[in-house]
Amino acid sequence: MMSLTAIKYHQSMSRWEPNAQGRLVQAALQLYVERGFEQTTVAEIAKLAGLTERTFFRYFADKREVLFWGAGALQELLESTVAAAPESEAPIATIRSAIEAAGAIFQERREGSLLRQSVIALNTELQERELIKLASLAAAMSEGLRRRGVAEPGASLTAEAGIVVMKIAFERWVEAGGEPDLPQLIRDTFSEFKTAAG
Amino acid sequence: MMSLTAIKYHQSMSRWEPNAQGRLVQAALQLYVERGFEQTTVAEIAKLAGLTERTFFRYFADKREVLFWGAGALQELLESTVAAAPESEAPIATIRSAIEAAGAIFQERREGSLLRQSVIALNTELQERELIKLASLAAAMSEGLRRRGVAEPGASLTAEAGIVVMKIAFERWVEAGGEPDLPQLIRDTFSEFKTAAG
Repeated sequence: MMSLTAIKYHQSMSRWEPNAQGRLVQAALQLYVERGFEQTTVAEIAKLAGLTERTFFRYFADKREVLFWGAGALQELLESTVAAAPESEAPIATIRSAIEAAGAIFQERREGSLLRQSVIALNTELQERELIKLASLAAAMSEGLRRRGVAEPGASLTAEAGIVVMKIAFERWVEAGGEPDLPQLIRDTFSEFKTAAG
Repeated sequence: MMSLTAIKYHQSMSRWEPNAQGRLVQAALQLYVERGFEQTTVAEIAKLAGLTERTFFRYFADKREVLFWGAGALQELLESTVAAAPESEAPIATIRSAIEAAGAIFQERREGSLLRQSVIALNTELQERELIKLASLAAAMSEGLRRRGVAEPGASLTAEAGIVVMKIAFERWVEAGGEPDLPQLIRDTFSEFKTAAG
């Protein structure tokens, strides 16, 4: 094991790699699609990205986390959208805005979102990790609603409803190859959800 | 490793143990609550139940599965309730009946349900296993609705809505120490869900 001083020295000596994280994500997705998630090693990802394994581990705990690096930013987006909603807005409208904002990000990163999903669809462990991520997002939004004075069980029910709509709208979008516009599809799915729950 | 013939011989020689599975579940729950899930071994569970480890493994793959042995029966209950619903019934009413039937089982096994939940609440891995179980139940009900001619995305949205209501009604029931009557609480939560999603 290196001492902390040695680690700091090594870090300060390493070249700064422009967009290392983005290159690693892109290389990983390419290999996961071509060879399969299980068959790909961190060494191969780093090599394809033109970086070292040490650089990989500076950004990601393991090869699974490459597929979930955006989860923190997504949660912050949902939380900040809920926090910034007009005071008088109905909770379901607030949640719909948050999920639409998330949909706009997936739409912007269409190709990456589709590749990522095709990898996850083939691996049970990754699907489980995705379920856990969705549960955390629901909990974060329901906490956000409670901070705005929404009582339970309404806060949890509304937040969970939003996650159900996001999940199903996203599945429809992926099945159609990234069509139509995801925020619009999310709005439509919210409206179908209202009918289904009625 | 024993040969298949040897295994069959050993099985035929073993005494039949009355309600071995039920005794193992009860012993496991008691130890998980007293000592914690992580700290309990299969040997201790078998000993408290007055059975052998071999008998334990005849019923359960590992100590985690003791907490999920009812998942198959629960799924069958939901599926058969969906399949048996009147043809003209609205999908959401069908799902509500299925979830109420599940609630009646939890209510009947009130003490066991509460103990089980108190164990799961303390362990992230068990919570994840529970999420996966809920996702399977949603998929089974949505398949049941499609077989009855309900189109997508309505089938999935309705089934997922039912699971959200079950999860949140169950949490409320647990927090209140197994009160009030769970099927009634499920009906109330469905009605609050309709308001929240509206």
